[in-house]
Amino acid sequence: MLTMQDALLALTKYWTDRGCIVVQPFNTEVGAGTLNPATVLRVLGPEPWRVAYVEPSVRPDDARYGENPNRLQTHTQFQVILKPDPGNPQELYLGSLEALGIDIRAHDVRFVEDNWASPALGAWGLGWEVWLDGLEITQFTYFQQAGGQTLEPVSVEVTYGIERIMMALQGVDHFKKIAYAPGISYGEAFGQAEYEMSRYYLDDADVEANKRLFEEYATEAKRLLDLRLPVPAHTYVLKCSHTFNVLDSRGAISTTERARAFARMRGLAREVSALWAERRAELGHPLGVAEVPALAAAPTSFAEVTEPATLLFEIGTEELPPSEVTRTVEAVRAAVTDKLGATRLTHGAVEVHGTPRRVVVLVADVAPREPDAERTVRGPKVAAAFDANGEPTKAVQGFARGQKVELSELGRVTENGVEHVALVKTETGRGAVEVLSGLLGEVVAELRSEKNMKWNDPKLSFTRPIRWLLALLGRTPVPVAVSTLQAGTTTRVHRTAAEPEVAVAEADGYLEFLAGHGIDADASARQAKIVAAATELAASVGGTVDFTAEAGVLAEVTNLVEWPTPILGGFEERYLDLPGEILTTVMRKHQRYLPVRDADGGLLPHFVAVANGSVDADRVRSGNEAVLRARYEDAAFFWRADLKTPLEDMKAGLAKLTFADKLGSMADRAERIASLAATLAGHVDLGDGEATLKRAGDLAKFDLGSQMVIELSSLAGTMAREYARHAGETGEVAQALFEMEQPRSAGDPLPASVPGALLSLADRFDLLAGLFGIGANPTGSSDPFGLRRAALGAVSVLRAFPELRAITLPVALEAARAQLGLDVPAETVAAAREFAVRRYEQALLDAGHDHRFVNAVLPLADAPVVADETLTQLTALAADPAFGELVAALQRVRRIVPADTAGTYDASALTEPAEVALHQAFAGLGARPDGLAGFAAATAVLTAPVNTFFDEVLVMAEDPAVKAARLGLLASIRDHAAPVLDWQALGTAPA
Amino acid sequence: MLTMQDALLALTKYWTDRGCIVVQPFNTEVGAGTLNPATVLRVLGPEPWRVAYVEPSVRPDDARYGENPNRLQTHTQFQVILKPDPGNPQELYLGSLEALGIDIRAHDVRFVEDNWASPALGAWGLGWEVWLDGLEITQFTYFQQAGGQTLEPVSVEVTYGIERIMMALQGVDHFKKIAYAPGISYGEAFGQAEYEMSRYYLDDADVEANKRLFEEYATEAKRLLDLRLPVPAHTYVLKCSHTFNVLDSRGAISTTERARAFARMRGLAREVSALWAERRAELGHPLGVAEVPALAAAPTSFAEVTEPATLLFEIGTEELPPSEVTRTVEAVRAAVTDKLGATRLTHGAVEVHGTPRRVVVLVADVAPREPDAERTVRGPKVAAAFDANGEPTKAVQGFARGQKVELSELGRVTENGVEHVALVKTETGRGAVEVLSGLLGEVVAELRSEKNMKWNDPKLSFTRPIRWLLALLGRTPVPVAVSTLQAGTTTRVHRTAAEPEVAVAEADGYLEFLAGHGIDADASARQAKIVAAATELAASVGGTVDFTAEAGVLAEVTNLVEWPTPILGGFEERYLDLPGEILTTVMRKHQRYLPVRDADGGLLPHFVAVANGSVDADRVRSGNEAVLRARYEDAAFFWRADLKTPLEDMKAGLAKLTFADKLGSMADRAERIASLAATLAGHVDLGDGEATLKRAGDLAKFDLGSQMVIELSSLAGTMAREYARHAGETGEVAQALFEMEQPRSAGDPLPASVPGALLSLADRFDLLAGLFGIGANPTGSSDPFGLRRAALGAVSVLRAFPELRAITLPVALEAARAQLGLDVPAETVAAAREFAVRRYEQALLDAGHDHRFVNAVLPLADAPVVADETLTQLTALAADPAFGELVAALQRVRRIVPADTAGTYDASALTEPAEVALHQAFAGLGARPDGLAGFAAATAVLTAPVNTFFDEVLVMAEDPAVKAARLGLLASIRDHAAPVLDWQALGTAPA
Repeated sequence: MLTMQDALLALTKYWTDRGCIVVQPFNTEVGAGTLNPATVLRVLGPEPWRVAYVEPSVRPDDARYGENPNRLQTHTQFQVILKPDPGNPQELYLGSLEALGIDIRAHDVRFVEDNWASPALGAWGLGWEVWLDGLEITQFTYFQQAGGQTLEPVSVEVTYGIERIMMALQGVDHFKKIAYAPGISYGEAFGQAEYEMSRYYLDDADVEANKRLFEEYATEAKRLLDLRLPVPAHTYVLKCSHTFNVLDSRGAISTTERARAFARMRGLAREVSALWAERRAELGHPLGVAEVPALAAAPTSFAEVTEPATLLFEIGTEELPPSEVTRTVEAVRAAVTDKLGATRLTHGAVEVHGTPRRVVVLVADVAPREPDAERTVRGPKVAAAFDANGEPTKAVQGFARGQKVELSELGRVTENGVEHVALVKTETGRGAVEVLSGLLGEVVAELRSEKNMKWNDPKLSFTRPIRWLLALLGRTPVPVAVSTLQAGTTTRVHRTAAEPEVAVAEADGYLEFLAGHGIDADASARQAKIVAAATELAASVGGTVDFTAEAGVLAEVTNLVEWPTPILGGFEERYLDLPGEILTTVMRKHQRYLPVRDADGGLLPHFVAVANGSVDADRVRSGNEAVLRARYEDAAFFWRADLKTPLEDMKAGLAKLTFADKLGSMADRAERIASLAATLAGHVDLGDGEATLKRAGDLAKFDLGSQMVIELSSLAGTMAREYARHAGETGEVAQALFEMEQPRSAGDPLPASVPGALLSLADRFDLLAGLFGIGANPTGSSDPFGLRRAALGAVSVLRAFPELRAITLPVALEAARAQLGLDVPAETVAAAREFAVRRYEQALLDAGHDHRFVNAVLPLADAPVVADETLTQLTALAADPAFGELVAALQRVRRIVPADTAGTYDASALTEPAEVALHQAFAGLGARPDGLAGFAAATAVLTAPVNTFFDEVLVMAEDPAVKAARLGLLASIRDHAAPVLDWQALGTAPA
Repeated sequence: MLTMQDALLALTKYWTDRGCIVVQPFNTEVGAGTLNPATVLRVLGPEPWRVAYVEPSVRPDDARYGENPNRLQTHTQFQVILKPDPGNPQELYLGSLEALGIDIRAHDVRFVEDNWASPALGAWGLGWEVWLDGLEITQFTYFQQAGGQTLEPVSVEVTYGIERIMMALQGVDHFKKIAYAPGISYGEAFGQAEYEMSRYYLDDADVEANKRLFEEYATEAKRLLDLRLPVPAHTYVLKCSHTFNVLDSRGAISTTERARAFARMRGLAREVSALWAERRAELGHPLGVAEVPALAAAPTSFAEVTEPATLLFEIGTEELPPSEVTRTVEAVRAAVTDKLGATRLTHGAVEVHGTPRRVVVLVADVAPREPDAERTVRGPKVAAAFDANGEPTKAVQGFARGQKVELSELGRVTENGVEHVALVKTETGRGAVEVLSGLLGEVVAELRSEKNMKWNDPKLSFTRPIRWLLALLGRTPVPVAVSTLQAGTTTRVHRTAAEPEVAVAEADGYLEFLAGHGIDADASARQAKIVAAATELAASVGGTVDFTAEAGVLAEVTNLVEWPTPILGGFEERYLDLPGEILTTVMRKHQRYLPVRDADGGLLPHFVAVANGSVDADRVRSGNEAVLRARYEDAAFFWRADLKTPLEDMKAGLAKLTFADKLGSMADRAERIASLAATLAGHVDLGDGEATLKRAGDLAKFDLGSQMVIELSSLAGTMAREYARHAGETGEVAQALFEMEQPRSAGDPLPASVPGALLSLADRFDLLAGLFGIGANPTGSSDPFGLRRAALGAVSVLRAFPELRAITLPVALEAARAQLGLDVPAETVAAAREFAVRRYEQALLDAGHDHRFVNAVLPLADAPVVADETLTQLTALAADPAFGELVAALQRVRRIVPADTAGTYDASALTEPAEVALHQAFAGLGARPDGLAGFAAATAVLTAPVNTFFDEVLVMAEDPAVKAARLGLLASIRDHAAPVLDWQALGTAPA
């Protein structure tokens, strides 16, 4: 059996054999191998660097006293940096798995999209988590930025999670059981440290002392930066970071403190990086400068073909994110079609397919060449081309010379009635190979995704590296050169194949050729295969898969494999006692498994995993089962622990969770939410709901103190409902607690009950008022506290509950402000209101409403439901010409009346028939009806009198009394219409 | 070429193959691998533990900006712990050198005594530094105590200095040139960090911030101990320790702060250790309990020999310290001789020899057995043995039964005139083998050295482990069992021999047998061999070795080898420009080389190193030359740097060296010394010396600011003289600066010039007054500031300079106190004076003076030179009967006069002839002569009148006036004698 220390030695050996230098773990606590200067500093600048090292990585908030089978406060990373990207890092990585004795042909090894960003480091990269039978064993990243600096060249970072790998290889279900060395288990070697350091991080670290340490470290780091010493400065940044993590795991970091600390650490990290890069340059880059791969030579000659033929063009990539497979297929289809359309080359159907590793373009019947074409080049006007004597002028001579023809070859052309000298040129059609060579190169060069990265190619940029091109027209190679890539006549099949690179003779039958190598390039075929096989597998245990519910997972797995191999796995029935949301969350989100259900939609203890290619199904199954078991065991552990804890005890735990500066703990916040919800309830008749609201308010947020939610924060609310039910609370209370967390994001379901809605509103208005109150408003694109989401959520709830229309934004925000116990000025509340209105506006625009209509109803946005109703009516009325005329009339009124004119007038001063008619029509209106529709119907009677009035009456009469009366009449009409909507915003052409 | 990373991997592989678990370097800065909990905690308690790991060890005061070829702020240790001692750790270690590709047959690999103690850790051990051709490459220690706890079982600690090993293996002369990995040098990989961290440690660390960190860490450690969490507590102790080192390298730690910090860290370390051991016991010792080796079976039968034969007894050890070789040979000789003498076994000469690895006992002509002997056992008195009827009583029956004989076998014996029943027993002589078996076992069991240690043997304790016994009487094995050891008939020769263990057939000719295996057991023969060969080698380059001057080194190297192989080495002539003291200090103290001199005693660029056994002389030579070159290069580097520095600049550096709390910097201290020396000079006519004293005072201690002295502190004073000369100061000034540091220890030369003496005194009195002044007096056996040495030094100087007699202890201490600028009470000065007097008293006693005489002159000790003179005279007079009578008379006077009687009287009241005679004799004395001898001569006239007075006069007369006069007369005599010495202290029998 390979012990853990053997594994570390094997990896060290493997990577040193591949040119890596070995360094030691860093001698101050780091959260990850990335933070070791051998990574985070060495990736900067142009110097080449290959390094491998072990890094015990300290994550205080993963401390579990050694009790959790998979969670450790110090876990062991093995870290590799390859700088520059050697071009085949995935292949090198797979070799290292073989060095660990892993049979990568039998196991399901997959590169699953996982991007990495560390705001605290100003760093990000794109890459994958590597799965071994569903178990994440490695993080594989193309490092794009560090310390705020763009990396040039890019480094490949490979980080192995050693304990996980060992548990899988040794088949043990607790990290303590890992055979660490001959005769000594991991638990025997490190169990006591794991327990005691957990105690320190979770319970016993002195908060005030650690806060002081943080300050000392940050100050020392800054001072060292000013002294231009990036190396010691970096060690102090690391000490800062670790101390922050300690405080965090002690629950001592409030949201505001977190943001401040992150900003500070990020700033320091950026300075360290910049200074390091500068110092290396000053030292003349002691390790040299990495070589940039040479560009491929542009093709200079092109084969001629004589018959129409099929074009095959394959763009070979490293594993694309599933969503990018679809997007790229579409983009390539459009690009090829457009670009071909811009040539004179005739062709048949354009077919594009995609897998994680390739985009395959097939174009039928591509003509062997473009037809020739004529083109007329216009020269000078004839009048200017020949002088009085009919001799050619310099102008026409110059034109001929420019076109490289004799004067005699020029003809004439008339354009817009003016005669010009002209040359009619015959453009010879290009050969298909030449046309395609350029066109296909452009397609590759122009590839872009939502989030692009660099690799060892100096010019290309895409979602993942492009590693090969294959281009054949029939059997003729098409030379395509893009940056460093040169199209060839080979493709790459599974990396585990005996021959991973194979020659392709011809374009025709390529999909079948690929299928012969175990690759199905057609996504819909892959999906159909998964559906069929999963249905059959589920049926074998009496179940079904709800493909509608699992559409997201299905789409994802379809594009995670080149050859789907669905495998049925199971888990112990006892886990079915856990709430279904937990089970499905883990299956879908973490594992991309399809849950299997019985006829009633209940979960069965089975799942379908989709492996790639041909694998040893039993091994892959048992691997996946082990992963799921570990995850469920975790969840079950929390579940049992939480069920034993009275709700009040969990709630008491909130006192230890700092919320924000001046805003107290999470317990304080929960209390404010309950109280605010009660206040807001004053605006509505709750009936029986009153008791529900009271009890749910008392319990508000209690599940934040549960182990499950501490672990899986996305289950907040869900667990509240579950635990409340188990504790014997009423279904209404449980539901209200669940609904309080809704909506979690835009598009998420909204609360259904009024108590739930009130709690949801209270939660969000407390957040808004509180954080605006302490000056933590979002700035620019940064919104660390999720205030945009909160404001939009509140508005959405208000829109969904017409019965709550009395709870306007100012009412709610003022009530929230009043109980903060802070001195918050009125402008601040106004700013928060404005912030919420902007979210509402954006939501309306995003929903496709006409921006003029949106602007018109915004004055009503304090009660979004009212604004909504108005908007609906406005949209309906927009097509009505009569309404259009009313709008025009009202706008006309408004335009002419100065803003400060009061809406009162002496009717006796009005004598002209038109003005008297208008006065009478207005006076006859009576009270303004509620709602736009009613208003429009009632007020339509004014349209004609208004228009007549303007046609026949001069408002600005010489007699001041008359003038005043006329303006007053118009102002009265204006004021009557004003509360309904902002008429001016509708513009001049409302329809 | 083996790169450094290859070497680390090779060692890791070697030790894991031998059952070591591999752990990672610790993730907080440590000064040595020992501090990693994998050593310092795991060596505690009974659990077995074998571990190997790399440890980048941070030594801030070794920071040199990467400029010094051999000194790094972070050097790489490879650390191995074998617990329990496997019995053959040296052999295992040598195997690891072979794993590194070192041919241990060709090189000179030696185990050279080096004991290790870390007061800060409460830890110590005995062992060696391992030399490879004179280069220290490894520390090898039997760990005896850690955290104040005695280790049971003992651990073997092996610490490799990797950079040194690599420099030797790769033949490079700067650590930056080490090939660290293929194509990357050490300097390329770590040069920038080395420079920047040096900057931090030497120049830029914020002192106040680090002081605050120290406090935080120490407080957190203590708190965690109270929470019973030794693991996190230990990490905080390490952080304390590192922070302390940072402060120290910044020169920010005063002597008093150092002592306080050490005490605090030691206290914490002890608590951590105790708590860890306790916790492991509570956890039930998860790794089990180490097996204790079985005791050897006691012999039950003994071979019989028939002829006298030679006894060979060999005690095989691991390398003994050189001084212990000699001591042990003598001890074994005495023990064997004594123990044989206590038997009836006749034998010839006892011959004992020693090498570092063996003590060989040869006893000629040991008789085959003891002769028989008779012994009488006395029983009850005859009177009690038989009753009235002559029947045997119970008493005699019991006696017979006890002796297991019949009554009829009893005889009679008369003792002191009383007849007893008795048994005459014949004691049969034991066979020689039986006798020797017991006796030799006792010799081994009773072996003791100055400093003893434990190894894997549960009972034995000695300076180094005893690993084998060999005992032969002629050709007959003698079974000796001591603890786990059982004598055999094999010996161990060089570890590098083809057969390291060889059978020994017989005792005769054993020394020749050993010689045949390249071992010379006879130390005098080894020494003669060294002298002869070294003489010849020196002559080959026209030089000689001054064996008188090198007696210490010669004695040491004789006992560092089993077969001396002197090798002539050389160094570059340019190093001869360095002061000779530097060159010889390095050769003798660090390298144990014999310097080679020319006819005038000047150094030649050569040395003689003494290797062990047969080696590849060229390799060993070049290895030793490289070591010396590196050391001289260091020294030359400092020398050149210092010579470029004006003396004033070096002196200015003293301001940065904190001296002690409230006593300012070293610059302040130097200023006080100069000023005190000037004050003391007021008591003596300096003549020309005045200018010398002034200038030397201005420069006082300047060399403490030189790089050489910072590096080699034992050269303080020496370097002052050299640098002063080079800077053009007068010879007198240079000499005075040199002498100021004298005496360095008891027995060291004293200053020769008066300015030197005054500076030496000022230095020491300032230290005494200052540290007593701030309450840092020595307590118990602890004297961290060397005040005992300082006080003794001052007294020694005063004794050597009669012209300075006016500088008494109170005068000097008061002058020193006066300029401290502190509020020091009179009792403190008195305590310092008393402290100095106690040192003087001890010196006199150590010199063998009669304790009564010493006590008698102690009242004069304020001027030690006066006390000395008096003591000399007293010793001379002691044999003079007349002086004895005078003493008796004076003591008689003193005894009778109450202490409060004034020394005045009315002579007219005296009328008795005896009292009148005494009065007249006393009145005729005149002034008291100086010195005891003069006093004794002049006062002898009182002896007879005093005696007559006491014979004839009743002092306590009834007439009060008479009585008063008589007592007054006697008191006057008493007072006249009192200042001369303490007469009572001489006791009643002065001679």
